Amino acid sequence: MTVHPAHTRIEVGDLAVPFTRVALTNGETFDRYCTEGPGSEPEHGLPPLRAAWIEGRGDTETYEGRETQLLDNGRAAVRRGQAQQEWRGERRAPRRAVAGRTVTQMAYARAGIVTEEMRYVAERERCDVELVRSEVAAGRAIIPANVNHPESEPMIIGKRFLVKINANIGNSAVTSSIAEEVDKLTHAVTWGADTVMDLSTGDDIHTTREWIIRNSPVPIGTVPIYQALEKVNGEADRLTWEVFRDTVIEQCEQGVDYMTIHAGVLLRYVPMTAQRVTGIVSRGGSIMAGWCLAHHEENFLYTHFDELCELFRHYDVSFSLGDGLRPGSTADANDEAQLSELRTLAELTQRAWEHDVQVMVEGPGHVPLHLVEENVRLQQDWCHGAPFYTLGPLATDIAPGYDHITSAIGAATIAMHGTAMLCYVTPKEHLGLPNRDDVKTGVITYKLAAHAADVAKGHPGARDWDDALSRARFEFRWRDQFALSLDPVTAEEFHDETLPAENAKTAHFCSMCGPKFCSMRISQDVRARFGDAELGMKQKSEEFVELGGTVYVEQPTRS
Amino acid sequence: MTVHPAHTRIEVGDLAVPFTRVALTNGETFDRYCTEGPGSEPEHGLPPLRAAWIEGRGDTETYEGRETQLLDNGRAAVRRGQAQQEWRGERRAPRRAVAGRTVTQMAYARAGIVTEEMRYVAERERCDVELVRSEVAAGRAIIPANVNHPESEPMIIGKRFLVKINANIGNSAVTSSIAEEVDKLTHAVTWGADTVMDLSTGDDIHTTREWIIRNSPVPIGTVPIYQALEKVNGEADRLTWEVFRDTVIEQCEQGVDYMTIHAGVLLRYVPMTAQRVTGIVSRGGSIMAGWCLAHHEENFLYTHFDELCELFRHYDVSFSLGDGLRPGSTADANDEAQLSELRTLAELTQRAWEHDVQVMVEGPGHVPLHLVEENVRLQQDWCHGAPFYTLGPLATDIAPGYDHITSAIGAATIAMHGTAMLCYVTPKEHLGLPNRDDVKTGVITYKLAAHAADVAKGHPGARDWDDALSRARFEFRWRDQFALSLDPVTAEEFHDETLPAENAKTAHFCSMCGPKFCSMRISQDVRARFGDAELGMKQKSEEFVELGGTVYVEQPTRS
Repeated sequence: MTVHPAHTRIEVGDLAVPFTRVALTNGETFDRYCTEGPGSEPEHGLPPLRAAWIEGRGDTETYEGRETQLLDNGRAAVRRGQAQQEWRGERRAPRRAVAGRTVTQMAYARAGIVTEEMRYVAERERCDVELVRSEVAAGRAIIPANVNHPESEPMIIGKRFLVKINANIGNSAVTSSIAEEVDKLTHAVTWGADTVMDLSTGDDIHTTREWIIRNSPVPIGTVPIYQALEKVNGEADRLTWEVFRDTVIEQCEQGVDYMTIHAGVLLRYVPMTAQRVTGIVSRGGSIMAGWCLAHHEENFLYTHFDELCELFRHYDVSFSLGDGLRPGSTADANDEAQLSELRTLAELTQRAWEHDVQVMVEGPGHVPLHLVEENVRLQQDWCHGAPFYTLGPLATDIAPGYDHITSAIGAATIAMHGTAMLCYVTPKEHLGLPNRDDVKTGVITYKLAAHAADVAKGHPGARDWDDALSRARFEFRWRDQFALSLDPVTAEEFHDETLPAENAKTAHFCSMCGPKFCSMRISQDVRARFGDAELGMKQKSEEFVELGGTVYVEQPTRS
Repeated sequence: MTVHPAHTRIEVGDLAVPFTRVALTNGETFDRYCTEGPGSEPEHGLPPLRAAWIEGRGDTETYEGRETQLLDNGRAAVRRGQAQQEWRGERRAPRRAVAGRTVTQMAYARAGIVTEEMRYVAERERCDVELVRSEVAAGRAIIPANVNHPESEPMIIGKRFLVKINANIGNSAVTSSIAEEVDKLTHAVTWGADTVMDLSTGDDIHTTREWIIRNSPVPIGTVPIYQALEKVNGEADRLTWEVFRDTVIEQCEQGVDYMTIHAGVLLRYVPMTAQRVTGIVSRGGSIMAGWCLAHHEENFLYTHFDELCELFRHYDVSFSLGDGLRPGSTADANDEAQLSELRTLAELTQRAWEHDVQVMVEGPGHVPLHLVEENVRLQQDWCHGAPFYTLGPLATDIAPGYDHITSAIGAATIAMHGTAMLCYVTPKEHLGLPNRDDVKTGVITYKLAAHAADVAKGHPGARDWDDALSRARFEFRWRDQFALSLDPVTAEEFHDETLPAENAKTAHFCSMCGPKFCSMRISQDVRARFGDAELGMKQKSEEFVELGGTVYVEQPTRS
């Protein structure tokens, strides 16, 4: 599905790398990065694009895998005695590294191997493949690509590349169904989400995730502690490393590409949050803080971190090191708790790299604008350039209902300074679970913030898009202006609200200023009459007055 | 009209300075800056708050004034032979300075006089009145306050004060009526607009403006060249200083508080725009550029600038020096044309100050994020700290339909660096005339951007609002969270979309995470059980497990 009649999905090169081609009315075309995937019927899932590449490397094997249990779908499934809405498409046996091998893109990159994934990414980013390989080898970029998610189209997260955005979906105990979540996924990637996190915390977590992964052309992230907590009846003190490990294996086998692990919430940091305005606002962070205090033991995610690395390197799951102590209000920004945790995340980054496991580091949250840059500067320094992945941050707390905007302000700023991926915030933030429309609004808002950062960073070619649209605007190619818009549907709808007639699509004005006051039109008329600025002004002036001396022509189509 | 049942308009001190008092459920109150005015029936207009202050100074006199002409309402009125929808409320004789006097707030401030307007502003801003007086005297702040707009509640624009926002309204040849425009005005000030510009370019310009000024509790700005152009049949080359001057007098007598004057569009700068992607995008700028070229003469607004100052000082009209050559695309940002004009605006600022006339300087437009700070730095340096008043700027061109957001990113950034007032951009920008809903969205978006800048600047007391809301959030005082929101209506609506029940307003969760995964709830439970962080962790840990060891309690109200 494409969002506009002038858009087509094209595929380039031997790897069939997709772009959205926008056909313009002047005969030109403009190709845009494309996230929407090849499309499919939800109950069949997507074709396994990467399957042959993965098999071709000969370093993985299929195996029987962990048996799915009723509890994987929560206590409701246990009560019912059966799972519901089971996945109806193809079921592939899980795959993992053969003994002694590490199948992460980082391991390949460090070994000097250029994978198809790296070539695909280079084509998508229109950059040299060596840049991709070297950035992945250095840990400054990641290609989240679980061998059990062959449906995904490889993408890269790192500050030398286009700024990416993530969309969160997933049900809660209060609302939403599997079909709705799959629809949100499709909607998110159609509008431009680069990755999607399934943050389900309600019923049918396992099955919902299966449907999502099988239908996702983008990497899928999760927070496994949510499902683990469900398995112990929601009682955080009953959480154990064993339950958690089992849940991680379950998700590795399904094909989750990156997992948020709150291993930086150390016992000694928890008291630092006691004087905060908003305490701990990360779900995972608060769960682990409760566990640490109840047991008076160190966070088991920290103490078992090397075992997690061992698992992840067998599937190529990337760490998203969770910031469980991120600030939840501008008052708490950049405080001792937050920065102490960041120090620990830096240590864990190094440890993951020792296992050749890919890592990104999560960041805030709520941060006033003057403290934003410090966040990314410290993270980049301490974590040796590992990609930063932030939630906004919101630049003020006063606008619930508009937090996609309060956070887009922080997001554009933090991305300009080097954040690699932005987690979207929807208008429902702090108020409720986002619906389909909220997902779209969040995605579009974050796409524009990410692009604003790309332009500000001088990313090669980024401004071409702005220039193409601005030229269409100046030349009154309204159809091209819509087609080149991030959201062509809304742009055209807004225009047509006051001027729906067909000929208004070629008119040299819109309803904002009307025909006589359109500055672009006057400016064009001036340019047309006076031509090249090098020509003598006096002569041109006389000519202009002879020509009638008006700077506009009354529109016969005026409504 | 207030927007929420917990809000009341209170009036403080002998000058009855208004605040919006928010009553919280914990018995506390929170007072916010209030722009909505005392309210009135549109056909009566507002009470003349400042009339006694102005008369009391004894330096103005009423006079007969210019006779209104049919052409003041455009060619449609001339064709009809009569004006329509004439103003039905009280008509006061116009007032101006007596011979030899200057009645600007700047003149008073420089003479060491503290006016009621200054005292009012100091109370509103909760600052020392001497700060107000000295900033106005130095030209670093203005109090736009035409003696013929006594209905206005004084406010100040300057970087030492709260960042202000302007909302543009006004009809175009294509759409809108007087009643609609008055309704947009009321809507704009209800939601927080600090000033409103009437940019009408259609029929009934004079009468529309009369209704707007008589009903406006905030300063009104205009761009007189629009009406002047209407008077010469829309033919820019027929514009003359005499027609323009007559229009300015008409508007001075009606009570316009500040006027955009495109006096910096000099003949020699026009060719600099020839190679731009989007040429000249200011309406006034393109009109004056056309005039300059047609006559091969210098801009008459520049050559007659001192005469304008002479007029303005008799009424206390402030200059808003228009940036007619502002960039209309990121490609054109900070170019030679723009910066050349800024140099001229700096010169004009000094000339206005020689006449004791108040000045602010307009700025862009479209600017990529990395070039934003330079705009305000150069303007502040060159214009000796005169207030900067920018349109956004938009940080990217690719998102028509979302330009309130692309511009809020630029606006928050430029305000953080010292811009004093932000002109809003609505979702309709580039596409059509904003309607009532667009006005609200534009105002709310800019209020949050302005506040984000206030917080980033460390403006005294600015973060109190964020903290009050965040505390309400952490304590699950949902009603207070709504009441403290910039837009309580939308916040409550979004919450109720999934949890409409009354008891959800006191529940310790929302539909986003559901009861078990609410981090704030878990964090509160942890805090409640473990108490002060100084207490021994081990002991507390044992106590916690004894207490049941769960970090949440199942909600009976779970839906």
